[in-house]
Amino acid sequence: MHFSDKILSVAETTSPICVWIDPSLDKIPNFLKQSALEECWEWNKLDAISLVLSEFWIWIIDAMEWLAGIIKPQLAYFEQYWSYWMKAYEEICSYAKEKWIIVIADAKRWDIWSTSEAYANAFLWKVDIFWDKKSLFSVDAVTVNPYLWSDWVLPFVDVCKKENKWIFVLVRTSNESASEFQELPVWEEMLCEEVARNVSNWWMDDLWERYFSSVWAVVASPHTEDMKYLRSLMPNQIFLVPWYWAQWLWIESIKECFNKNWLWAIINSSRAINYAYLKNSKYTEKDFVEASREEIWRMKNELSNI
Amino acid sequence: MHFSDKILSVAETTSPICVWIDPSLDKIPNFLKQSALEECWEWNKLDAISLVLSEFWIWIIDAMEWLAGIIKPQLAYFEQYWSYWMKAYEEICSYAKEKWIIVIADAKRWDIWSTSEAYANAFLWKVDIFWDKKSLFSVDAVTVNPYLWSDWVLPFVDVCKKENKWIFVLVRTSNESASEFQELPVWEEMLCEEVARNVSNWWMDDLWERYFSSVWAVVASPHTEDMKYLRSLMPNQIFLVPWYWAQWLWIESIKECFNKNWLWAIINSSRAINYAYLKNSKYTEKDFVEASREEIWRMKNELSNI
Repeated sequence: MHFSDKILSVAETTSPICVWIDPSLDKIPNFLKQSALEECWEWNKLDAISLVLSEFWIWIIDAMEWLAGIIKPQLAYFEQYWSYWMKAYEEICSYAKEKWIIVIADAKRWDIWSTSEAYANAFLWKVDIFWDKKSLFSVDAVTVNPYLWSDWVLPFVDVCKKENKWIFVLVRTSNESASEFQELPVWEEMLCEEVARNVSNWWMDDLWERYFSSVWAVVASPHTEDMKYLRSLMPNQIFLVPWYWAQWLWIESIKECFNKNWLWAIINSSRAINYAYLKNSKYTEKDFVEASREEIWRMKNELSNI
Repeated sequence: MHFSDKILSVAETTSPICVWIDPSLDKIPNFLKQSALEECWEWNKLDAISLVLSEFWIWIIDAMEWLAGIIKPQLAYFEQYWSYWMKAYEEICSYAKEKWIIVIADAKRWDIWSTSEAYANAFLWKVDIFWDKKSLFSVDAVTVNPYLWSDWVLPFVDVCKKENKWIFVLVRTSNESASEFQELPVWEEMLCEEVARNVSNWWMDDLWERYFSSVWAVVASPHTEDMKYLRSLMPNQIFLVPWYWAQWLWIESIKECFNKNWLWAIINSSRAINYAYLKNSKYTEKDFVEASREEIWRMKNELSNI
């Protein structure tokens, strides 16, 4: 199934909400940690970490049912524990696949050509397993970084073509120092606008060849005019928009993403959903699933008001 | 021990050669793969991959003895096999530590502040293991990407200060499309020169506070003038210079890196060393260790002629 169909079906049955998975051990309910440790009595703490992480997010995925259909695991948090936590990552993604949840790996990878190929194979395609190429562990989409140089993008696009996978290209971010590079003047434009044009062109090239495309964009800006302009440069892209709850200012800006219909943006939230039980004193830690579900519900309602 | 001391001792006893680890299963000798598979008869092929990878590079590390003292594992190739290959990565790095080999993780990571913190902890410092912070698995240095925005760099520098670890900041790369961004005009300079100034400033700030510094640079350019100018912008940095064997043109350019004495650059080679047995018909695959050792020897001699 092509991504736009898959996302269409997700959006029709659920919402464009994406749950960003950013594991912080100290925010996981203590009772879960305790029971994982007990289960691993003769094992080591590292196995317990692997266990509690996959358990916690499998519960969160259950909480998403009929409300949200996309997850975005952030690789940095998993890499902290090397192979131990990587196992949890694999299990979370496998469970998501069983539940027809779309998985976008938030890896922001990029490198020179051959290394980008390795990343593209790792995240989206097949790897060499003793004279055999197999899809060992691939997800639906990955985030990639186009800055520094653009030859990275082609190995990813090539793999997307083989397997109907998708990439989200970082165009605009909202952190404080983002302007340092993204707003550099290039041919009377800002650098990020140049990147937006590239994304649109890569998308077009891909479309021309296959009748559909795999190149989408990560766009975050609290400035309505900025968002409007970037949307005009990328009229056909699905936007992945992070940090929904950061500021109310964002609502106006987010409206600009939904230019055609509400399907053309994915709205991404992390701590607010994952650790919802910590924000409201009416919940105990045992209610963490319910708290998260209520938060997704609230977010869904707010989005439908837009 | 501070990095510059450690690198001094490595350079005095061995050479500034760095072996870049870029696992390609198809280039590993067949007899090693076969024996790993046999050893894993009741296990699966993935365990065998884990085994053969760590075995092969432990042999290469042995081949480096007294000739080279630095390795640089490229994360992309390891990530392809997820937790299976990550185990091999962990084992290779542990073995290197036992042998007093310096390990630079070629991860080129970067992200927003909190995520960069997670990466910095993962590669260079400690992680939270059930109410305990422990150094689970850290290496000596990591490569980082300063383009897109610079707030990433501070979490890495913070961790470096705590643990005497080091970062190599990507300043200049030599791939074809590198010029797209790196040569953008900024205040009458090229963007990469602006980054070089930043690296030098970060280094100075760090030095001011601690009397030594952790911020070094990855610099690759076949153009002598370019290299000379970057060296003048970063007079105190250790340079990590990749792709030694790419072209003969490089020799002239590489000379510019050694501005003070031959300690101030690390020269990086990958396939030429790792898979030396494939390049010369006098070797069979059983001679792979000897072939690699001879190649390092040859490279060391050539470098001392510079």
